[in-house]
Amino acid sequence: MARVAFIGLGNMGAPMARNLLKAGHSLKIFDLNPAVVDKLVSAGADSSETALSAAQQADIVITMLPAGKHVESVYLGEEGLLQRLSSRPLLIDSSTIDSETAKKVAAEAERKGFSMLDAPVSGGVAAAAAGTLSFMCGGSDSAFSQGKEVLGAMGKNLFHAGDHGAGQTAKACNNMLLAILMSGTSEALQLGVDNGLDPKVLSEIMLASSGRNWTLEVYNPYPGVMEKAPASNDYQPGFMVDLMAKDLGLAEEMAVKSGSAIPMGSNARNLYVAHQKKGNGSKDFSSIIQELK
Amino acid sequence: MARVAFIGLGNMGAPMARNLLKAGHSLKIFDLNPAVVDKLVSAGADSSETALSAAQQADIVITMLPAGKHVESVYLGEEGLLQRLSSRPLLIDSSTIDSETAKKVAAEAERKGFSMLDAPVSGGVAAAAAGTLSFMCGGSDSAFSQGKEVLGAMGKNLFHAGDHGAGQTAKACNNMLLAILMSGTSEALQLGVDNGLDPKVLSEIMLASSGRNWTLEVYNPYPGVMEKAPASNDYQPGFMVDLMAKDLGLAEEMAVKSGSAIPMGSNARNLYVAHQKKGNGSKDFSSIIQELK
Amino acid sequence: MARVAFIGLGNMGAPMARNLLKAGHSLKIFDLNPAVVDKLVSAGADSSETALSAAQQADIVITMLPAGKHVESVYLGEEGLLQRLSSRPLLIDSSTIDSETAKKVAAEAERKGFSMLDAPVSGGVAAAAAGTLSFMCGGSDSAFSQGKEVLGAMGKNLFHAGDHGAGQTAKACNNMLLAILMSGTSEALQLGVDNGLDPKVLSEIMLASSGRNWTLEVYNPYPGVMEKAPASNDYQPGFMVDLMAKDLGLAEEMAVKSGSAIPMGSNARNLYVAHQKKGNGSKDFSSIIQELK
Amino acid sequence: MARVAFIGLGNMGAPMARNLLKAGHSLKIFDLNPAVVDKLVSAGADSSETALSAAQQADIVITMLPAGKHVESVYLGEEGLLQRLSSRPLLIDSSTIDSETAKKVAAEAERKGFSMLDAPVSGGVAAAAAGTLSFMCGGSDSAFSQGKEVLGAMGKNLFHAGDHGAGQTAKACNNMLLAILMSGTSEALQLGVDNGLDPKVLSEIMLASSGRNWTLEVYNPYPGVMEKAPASNDYQPGFMVDLMAKDLGLAEEMAVKSGSAIPMGSNARNLYVAHQKKGNGSKDFSSIIQELK
Repeated sequence: MARVAFIGLGNMGAPMARNLLKAGHSLKIFDLNPAVVDKLVSAGADSSETALSAAQQADIVITMLPAGKHVESVYLGEEGLLQRLSSRPLLIDSSTIDSETAKKVAAEAERKGFSMLDAPVSGGVAAAAAGTLSFMCGGSDSAFSQGKEVLGAMGKNLFHAGDHGAGQTAKACNNMLLAILMSGTSEALQLGVDNGLDPKVLSEIMLASSGRNWTLEVYNPYPGVMEKAPASNDYQPGFMVDLMAKDLGLAEEMAVKSGSAIPMGSNARNLYVAHQKKGNGSKDFSSIIQELK
Repeated sequence: MARVAFIGLGNMGAPMARNLLKAGHSLKIFDLNPAVVDKLVSAGADSSETALSAAQQADIVITMLPAGKHVESVYLGEEGLLQRLSSRPLLIDSSTIDSETAKKVAAEAERKGFSMLDAPVSGGVAAAAAGTLSFMCGGSDSAFSQGKEVLGAMGKNLFHAGDHGAGQTAKACNNMLLAILMSGTSEALQLGVDNGLDPKVLSEIMLASSGRNWTLEVYNPYPGVMEKAPASNDYQPGFMVDLMAKDLGLAEEMAVKSGSAIPMGSNARNLYVAHQKKGNGSKDFSSIIQELK
Repeated sequence: MARVAFIGLGNMGAPMARNLLKAGHSLKIFDLNPAVVDKLVSAGADSSETALSAAQQADIVITMLPAGKHVESVYLGEEGLLQRLSSRPLLIDSSTIDSETAKKVAAEAERKGFSMLDAPVSGGVAAAAAGTLSFMCGGSDSAFSQGKEVLGAMGKNLFHAGDHGAGQTAKACNNMLLAILMSGTSEALQLGVDNGLDPKVLSEIMLASSGRNWTLEVYNPYPGVMEKAPASNDYQPGFMVDLMAKDLGLAEEMAVKSGSAIPMGSNARNLYVAHQKKGNGSKDFSSIIQELK
Repeated sequence: MARVAFIGLGNMGAPMARNLLKAGHSLKIFDLNPAVVDKLVSAGADSSETALSAAQQADIVITMLPAGKHVESVYLGEEGLLQRLSSRPLLIDSSTIDSETAKKVAAEAERKGFSMLDAPVSGGVAAAAAGTLSFMCGGSDSAFSQGKEVLGAMGKNLFHAGDHGAGQTAKACNNMLLAILMSGTSEALQLGVDNGLDPKVLSEIMLASSGRNWTLEVYNPYPGVMEKAPASNDYQPGFMVDLMAKDLGLAEEMAVKSGSAIPMGSNARNLYVAHQKKGNGSKDFSSIIQELK
């Protein structure tokens, strides 16, 4: 069992940390929100005053933060881990950020003698609670091997996407594709309904045909087709429009930098941003179908 | 066993007819191309001089024609089946055409006392040969029941999409979604590759994540990822760009008529038409990724 | 001076007819709405019971109707002009319809010995009232020459676009481009405002630079920039979203038939249709900027 | 007359510097390329060994550099102007870069006691030579007033877009709109031609109608319509596809940061990037019409 420091206990981080406790790892935690800290302390974690003190005697440090600037601050800041840690734990950043920042932090970590993985997740809050997340990892083979046991306590699919930043790149590609699947499935269903088809029947047909995709399998955007999907529960998330808009922004910036054409992905970003601006940011991302009604 | 008339023995029609023979049905055939007729006669079919004579004593008539105008001609022409047939076989049109023409022909058929199904297929030449097509049927419950045995000899998934035209509508929706999946998957893979990922690794990751879709499962557009996919065989079809462009045109016209917004589908149509115009019409439709390289 | 029959006295037709009276032409009119007929009778027109009787002794017949089906009915119907007229006046259809229908009607007219022009207009209600419309005409040189005097009483720009249908084709191209200009200008202005620019200043800069276009010149979509523009008057039309959506549908159908790629035009159609579906159909078309806020 | 330092003498910088000499200003220049330096020395400029020495005794420093990283290096580097200059000339950066970098450099300049303008240009090489550029300036009123005389020697339209970065923002908005105009005009012309219209006639019609825009006025993309346009000269630039793709990337990154929806602009970026990737980067940007043929 490992000594793990967990920094950032939001909607995703808290259930991930809880699964580490369940697996028998010892856990030191840090978050600015005392409420989430208290709950995890009740479950067996030790709380720390700072990210640094949480990390000080850990074998593995895991960070789960909202955006690149927070990651930069925790690792590269004047009081940051790379500057101040005397030990050399494995560093795993599971935040979803741009791959450039991921590469920059990892390069500085290596310069200071740390091993580091970028390891963003896929699967959402439900998978975080169930311990069935997918981890898309970027870093060396040895760092990936070293991280496997702990990551395996939080997820069931562990992918080694490539070198530093590759985890973030893979996640951006996947989530861009997800937005395309969701938008495309939404408009195919709506086009059918506008022309007299029953959305359940059309969903079944496409699920058994070449239109099959993840959203038709488990996340149908048409209300009433799938009882447990957000679409049948007023589009309560699930995975929020705000988060999808952020991820599509990361993919778009990546495409601009690499000079890649992403016609469908850009289209999806513009649909999601327009949807978000009309006050739908905290709805589930399958609510994009409402833009077509 | 039924007496079946089969009219239109192209790349799809010929193997479909062959499966009817295998299943023990008696078959009268008509096509303007003597070569394809001869082959089926060797396999046990009877050839006829005209569509009308092929249909005259059939229990079921199946048509498999290139476009709406051919369907109109065979059924509605002055020498057409509706005008001239003295018997009242079940009429099944498996051509992929616009749902308006399908409705118009079916309405006229009903007026003359025929039962009719529009029953376009999904699955391509390979599925036609293997007898594993999907049929998307529009028409009455009783017509659908009546057609099942014969359709089941040619396909494994028989869907009753709704009333007349609903089969065509469902197919247009599905194929539009397929074009979106293929374009989106292509650009997600290319974006990853442009940013240093291995297309095989990224394909695996997305296949196990929320980007999962039919193209990643069986039809990966990146050369070398899937040995048997057209992408690994110089984009030999498979399903041609010309046909996908046609199907996207049908979906687009349907959307204009119903006043539906199909932002991703329109985008896909424009990508495919531009690709087609550069001389790629007879390549497999997964070659759309070449527009992004 | 000519004897003119004018059929269809809606928002556009009525002021056009009024300008014919002002120019000294004698005018017989027909419309199903007695209110608009009465007003024109007060202004000096003669009313007729039917389209046919209005046209019977005319030198020139002008039709201004909502859609292709009305044009077909007036000209091709059993009681239609081509069937029943004993004289052979010049026929001018100023409705905005698809070029296929325009060609079909004109071909039938020629077969019956009529000269015909398709002559859709550009400029909207204000230009109709001011007599400053543009006419885009399709037909023979001689028909165009013959129509010039009467068209010149209603408009200031008379274009001979080509043979039958060419007027409709030119209008569809122009209005598709207009929708692109309006959408593009809207998003450029909103992008500037979102990044701290004053919309007036940015409008001035782009008007003097390579972004210059008709919408910046006379129809700025940002509220407050141009006092008399619909944008500064709650988006009261002007040119309605419903009409722009219709015109974009005509362009899209034309593109599908000719196998043309229109990526920007399709994008504009989908924006306008989505905008329309949210209840904005009777707003001015510059309200598309509201989709971006 | 002012003492001006000019740093960066590429295709745009060299003719701009030449116009300063013509207007009677004294000029110190710096560029890494000795050929362009020599030509300007022949015309009356003084050459310097470094950017710093060129700027040392100037009243006004003008920089015209390829990208944000060069601007950062010249101003913020360890040997950069802000660090090393003992005098406090007005700083004018006419490079086209992202507004964030422009703001960052200007903020540091102000902290060190400099006045600074970001002043990107519009108009291309021809306007640079003719002294008819447009300058879009960001900075204080007083800096704008102070720069006017010198800018007026190089351009005829001087705009004060707002505070620091506003010049770059305005240029990004304008050039995004330009790309939309060019793409949209291209597809409207091609759609007309595909449906039988003469591109000259259609150009005239749209120029006199609501489709009017800068590209139809002076830069028609259809070969043969406008004798002096790049389209009639094998798409020799003019303004290169590479540069338009760069500018669209700047607009896109700006939109991602401000959370703005730019559906038409993103579409244009993807068209230009795909066009560029096929080896058309050094063609004129009006060659985008070739993607539609």
